[in-house]
Amino acid sequence: MTEKDGSDDRLFPTEPSVRSIAKELYSQVKDVPLICPHGHVDPRVFADNAPFPDPAWLFIIPDHYVHRMLHSAGISHAALGLPGVDGRRGETDSRRIWRILCENWHLFRGTPSRLWLEMELSEVFDVHTPLSAATADEIFDQLTERLNEPEYLPRALFERFNIEVLATTDDATDELASHRSIADDPWPGRVIPTFRPDKVIDPERPSFHDSIRTLAEITGEDTTSYPGYLAALRQRREYFRGFGATATDHGHPSALTAELSNTEAEHLFKRIIEGDFGPQDAELFRGHMLMQMAAMSLDDGLVMQIHPGSARNHDPALFARYGPDQGADIPAPTNYVDHLKPLLNRFGNEPSFTVVVFTLDEATYSRELAPLAGYYPAMQLGPAWWFYDSPHGIRRYRELVTETAGFFNTAGFNDDTRAFASIPVRHDVARRIDCGYLAQLVAEHQLPLDEAHATAYALAYGRAKEVYRL
Amino acid sequence: MTEKDGSDDRLFPTEPSVRSIAKELYSQVKDVPLICPHGHVDPRVFADNAPFPDPAWLFIIPDHYVHRMLHSAGISHAALGLPGVDGRRGETDSRRIWRILCENWHLFRGTPSRLWLEMELSEVFDVHTPLSAATADEIFDQLTERLNEPEYLPRALFERFNIEVLATTDDATDELASHRSIADDPWPGRVIPTFRPDKVIDPERPSFHDSIRTLAEITGEDTTSYPGYLAALRQRREYFRGFGATATDHGHPSALTAELSNTEAEHLFKRIIEGDFGPQDAELFRGHMLMQMAAMSLDDGLVMQIHPGSARNHDPALFARYGPDQGADIPAPTNYVDHLKPLLNRFGNEPSFTVVVFTLDEATYSRELAPLAGYYPAMQLGPAWWFYDSPHGIRRYRELVTETAGFFNTAGFNDDTRAFASIPVRHDVARRIDCGYLAQLVAEHQLPLDEAHATAYALAYGRAKEVYRL
Amino acid sequence: MTEKDGSDDRLFPTEPSVRSIAKELYSQVKDVPLICPHGHVDPRVFADNAPFPDPAWLFIIPDHYVHRMLHSAGISHAALGLPGVDGRRGETDSRRIWRILCENWHLFRGTPSRLWLEMELSEVFDVHTPLSAATADEIFDQLTERLNEPEYLPRALFERFNIEVLATTDDATDELASHRSIADDPWPGRVIPTFRPDKVIDPERPSFHDSIRTLAEITGEDTTSYPGYLAALRQRREYFRGFGATATDHGHPSALTAELSNTEAEHLFKRIIEGDFGPQDAELFRGHMLMQMAAMSLDDGLVMQIHPGSARNHDPALFARYGPDQGADIPAPTNYVDHLKPLLNRFGNEPSFTVVVFTLDEATYSRELAPLAGYYPAMQLGPAWWFYDSPHGIRRYRELVTETAGFFNTAGFNDDTRAFASIPVRHDVARRIDCGYLAQLVAEHQLPLDEAHATAYALAYGRAKEVYRL
Repeated sequence: MTEKDGSDDRLFPTEPSVRSIAKELYSQVKDVPLICPHGHVDPRVFADNAPFPDPAWLFIIPDHYVHRMLHSAGISHAALGLPGVDGRRGETDSRRIWRILCENWHLFRGTPSRLWLEMELSEVFDVHTPLSAATADEIFDQLTERLNEPEYLPRALFERFNIEVLATTDDATDELASHRSIADDPWPGRVIPTFRPDKVIDPERPSFHDSIRTLAEITGEDTTSYPGYLAALRQRREYFRGFGATATDHGHPSALTAELSNTEAEHLFKRIIEGDFGPQDAELFRGHMLMQMAAMSLDDGLVMQIHPGSARNHDPALFARYGPDQGADIPAPTNYVDHLKPLLNRFGNEPSFTVVVFTLDEATYSRELAPLAGYYPAMQLGPAWWFYDSPHGIRRYRELVTETAGFFNTAGFNDDTRAFASIPVRHDVARRIDCGYLAQLVAEHQLPLDEAHATAYALAYGRAKEVYRL
Repeated sequence: MTEKDGSDDRLFPTEPSVRSIAKELYSQVKDVPLICPHGHVDPRVFADNAPFPDPAWLFIIPDHYVHRMLHSAGISHAALGLPGVDGRRGETDSRRIWRILCENWHLFRGTPSRLWLEMELSEVFDVHTPLSAATADEIFDQLTERLNEPEYLPRALFERFNIEVLATTDDATDELASHRSIADDPWPGRVIPTFRPDKVIDPERPSFHDSIRTLAEITGEDTTSYPGYLAALRQRREYFRGFGATATDHGHPSALTAELSNTEAEHLFKRIIEGDFGPQDAELFRGHMLMQMAAMSLDDGLVMQIHPGSARNHDPALFARYGPDQGADIPAPTNYVDHLKPLLNRFGNEPSFTVVVFTLDEATYSRELAPLAGYYPAMQLGPAWWFYDSPHGIRRYRELVTETAGFFNTAGFNDDTRAFASIPVRHDVARRIDCGYLAQLVAEHQLPLDEAHATAYALAYGRAKEVYRL
Repeated sequence: MTEKDGSDDRLFPTEPSVRSIAKELYSQVKDVPLICPHGHVDPRVFADNAPFPDPAWLFIIPDHYVHRMLHSAGISHAALGLPGVDGRRGETDSRRIWRILCENWHLFRGTPSRLWLEMELSEVFDVHTPLSAATADEIFDQLTERLNEPEYLPRALFERFNIEVLATTDDATDELASHRSIADDPWPGRVIPTFRPDKVIDPERPSFHDSIRTLAEITGEDTTSYPGYLAALRQRREYFRGFGATATDHGHPSALTAELSNTEAEHLFKRIIEGDFGPQDAELFRGHMLMQMAAMSLDDGLVMQIHPGSARNHDPALFARYGPDQGADIPAPTNYVDHLKPLLNRFGNEPSFTVVVFTLDEATYSRELAPLAGYYPAMQLGPAWWFYDSPHGIRRYRELVTETAGFFNTAGFNDDTRAFASIPVRHDVARRIDCGYLAQLVAEHQLPLDEAHATAYALAYGRAKEVYRL
């Protein structure tokens, strides 16, 4: 990605000789295709290939990184036009919403949201005017114009972004209609689903029973019996595999995994289904089901992903009005050394199994995760996640992980985003930081340049492709 | 603050182009007035305006950063002249005490204590001789001479330091006689109290019952009844506000906040007053009272500060002989995501409420505090505190906080010191490190220079003034 | 240590002026003798002075850093020739084992294992060919040739390495035959034992009862009575002191220390001996015995070392087949502020007592360990340990520890290795990183050059010698 604002050196180390090595490394990876093995883009975007809506809908309303920061400064969600769970919105004028962002752009100084949005405007949308109250309308107009041009349609961008494969994240009960539509279309873009069964596995979700019932309907299995429930899950995994899925994803409160006997599991499941359980039962059931998911992965080859450690919906007022995933999920301490032990003891040495583990608790990078990933063949460490998908966040990840686990127990980059148009700049930031880290190793005489090149390529492309079996 | 020893580059990043940007940023903030919203200077210093005592009393005896380090090398508190709780002292010759510091100056290499003291000698006291056994007496004499000159009197220094406002920390039962005396004096210095009710809120403090009784006496309320107790606290807050207070401060073992019904609270209070309680009751009561303090802040506008996470008086031998706050307080792991939830759920979205949260557990910066402050409008993150008020400590704070919470959810600098004469150099260190951090963002093309200037000014001045309503 | 590959700048900061200071500091310490106060070299190496075996035995089979990483990439322990607990091995051809390492050398990019091995080949073995599949045989042959030359015999290397003293680690029941043999030999090398009583103190070790019985046999004490048990330990400490030991070492799951009355201790011991105890009893007993060990240190002057926080044998399959210490020990969160309190309260202010505390939980460096070591005279902080004995690991250690504890509450470097031939390069890495850290302080005008020189010398030599009473 070439920049027009003279900032070709963006995010590279500042010492000139190191920066020069970083640029040399980066020059060889900046244009390699994007592997997007984990993300949250709606597949309808590609099925429909409709123009993106206006700037407020593109950059603010669905982006919890953005509206949480504005909220932290006292700007209400209503003023930002967030749709409530009842479908109602406060502000509905997208231009006014966009102005709020521009007027408060100083809040984002030093954050990746700012970095991404500025890079995106410049490099994707060819808009080079700095954001401010004064320029808000001008930029709004420029963007609106672009969004209606054919080269800004989703599929055109997919191709321009040089995306080799993009995985979405889909409920276990999703019929994958958009994926079917994409598959039936001559358009060659590779968009694949990811099997995310949280709603049918976590009994503490309000929708659990409904989801279980839907699962029964679409599989024809009796999901109120434990064997039927497992069979239904197996069937759905196979269904996802039919659409090209190579991975599952599990977002649990903790990383707990648990080994139950079949009898214990049956009893627990019965109580879960009957609603006769407490928080510890729910936790145990989730832990047990991670083991079952791993066992199924051994059979069907789906790569397992575990995303633990977020205390979801910290603000009940937000949850009540706007629902989940609106910026009030807060990381909590996470234990991997004890919690993953059952799973790793049973499956961690299996050659055909891969589990990618993520964290929001940076204290575990060097203490637990790198030592575990640096020992168990099945375990790969996912990239710096969520709040840590940022220049310092990625640097810390490499600094805390590499010396114990090397580069080849890490899973490459995930953009993990709903915001399709931000994908190339997110990858670009990671590539720049990784090249900077490698340049430092070269400059400190820890690594020769040719091996740094090979590693940069692995981190930008090869690791994600290999780990996710893409 | 201009230096005479050629070290104008002190604490700036070493890469010349980044250093140059840092210096440019710093040049615009180095002389802006000092906002001191949280500290522990005795207000009598300004009421009396008496000369500071000798170097041992100025730099060693009251400074637990200094005497804890000397103690760690086996030098006894008696040899350092610390007054015991019985008022007795070992060494009473200040010159000899000062010599001990000079002879052991190597212990402080790489610590902020050394940095502050050297900067203070040079920039406040115009003493440029390096400390050593050989120079101890010479420096002692130079300092003693200075301290008796009129321009080294507290009020003269207050003006020379360009302090716009200085907040002290005062017990809830303090009559604020010194503040009254300052207010009644034509001297224009703005010295305000901070309402610190720990002694009347924490039932595990030995003096709790005495303090409650004093509270009754000065308010005329029946502090053995729950409504009377709350009314007394409300009255005292108002009294403090009459002397210009804009904030309260709460130093609790944990960050626990708790929502009790009025009936539960009454019962708990009754048992507290009757001495019929255990550690968990005490913890719950403190947590409940933080909620009450927040509720009162909504009414009276006082900014709330929470300073949790110090395991106080780790060494009972020290405590028995020399009392509290003598250097044996050790940080402990602190939980914010669960503990602050009741308070933030009830008051975190209130536009008129501000709570500034501090930590001694750096693992929580990126995991808990930045995500919380980057969401809840009422929450501001206090600066790097205590052991972390240091060059690396402040750098880590910015690196771990900014990408999630930005700069405008942080509360600006606190000097947090008893050592009045060290105030300008403490601010100077923070300003230098912040300018270095911003310079790095500029050099990495994450922030244009004009916005870096504006941010440097906000961190040096605007944030503290705004957050603390000064 | 001079390098032949032009990498004299290895590991130094990259900014030229800082690098230049670092090199200047390093030039004065690179050749000072090695103090090795904590390690795991087998003393027989020096007693026998036999040639080292081939490269696989020297660099792979006994090095869990190396074979854990190969295992993480799916290479079996059998293919690497690890001897099972039954004595059986898979691959026995050392050349083939060596080839596996060379073919997978990319796994080690960015790790200290790679750094050490490359430095070792170059600087100890004069082998300058880069490792790769293509060069595996050539290097194997070169190394094999070297290992049979007289200047590569252990004692010759000991002298060439300029080792002033090397401490081994030995079971409490070890008769120290090799140490006796070295002592009886005219060879002047100073090789001393360290008293490691874990096997006779930790009742959860499978060998506990056997070890207790052995302890009885060699001491003539009744180790099934509490007084006899203590007397036996006292006797063994004295025995070790007779061979020059200056320290004990304690590898416990946690840092718990506990104060029991003599009666409580007697009762607990009785239940331990009778096998009538649970995990909490075992933990309490270990905690109590740390107190007893400290009490004995006060009498006999042995420096105490505590190495807590490793969850041993995380992979039971590995343990069953290959036994302990094979790379599946994973760090866990460790509490020092509460757990060390009993020990520090009783002995922490004793002038004649020294306890060196290590951690695998980096979150405790600044939160707990530096504040404790910066207060208690008896406590010294051990160097960056195990996974953190690495360039970034050591840098973080200095950055997180120094500002609170300074340099003179840290214990100097430990190589902590079984791999004798790697000792000089491990010290060299630490010296380079420490000089880089000091150079940064100089460049930031926090420390004058002469004091940086003195500190570099203390860290390279003086601290270890002084703290370990060598």
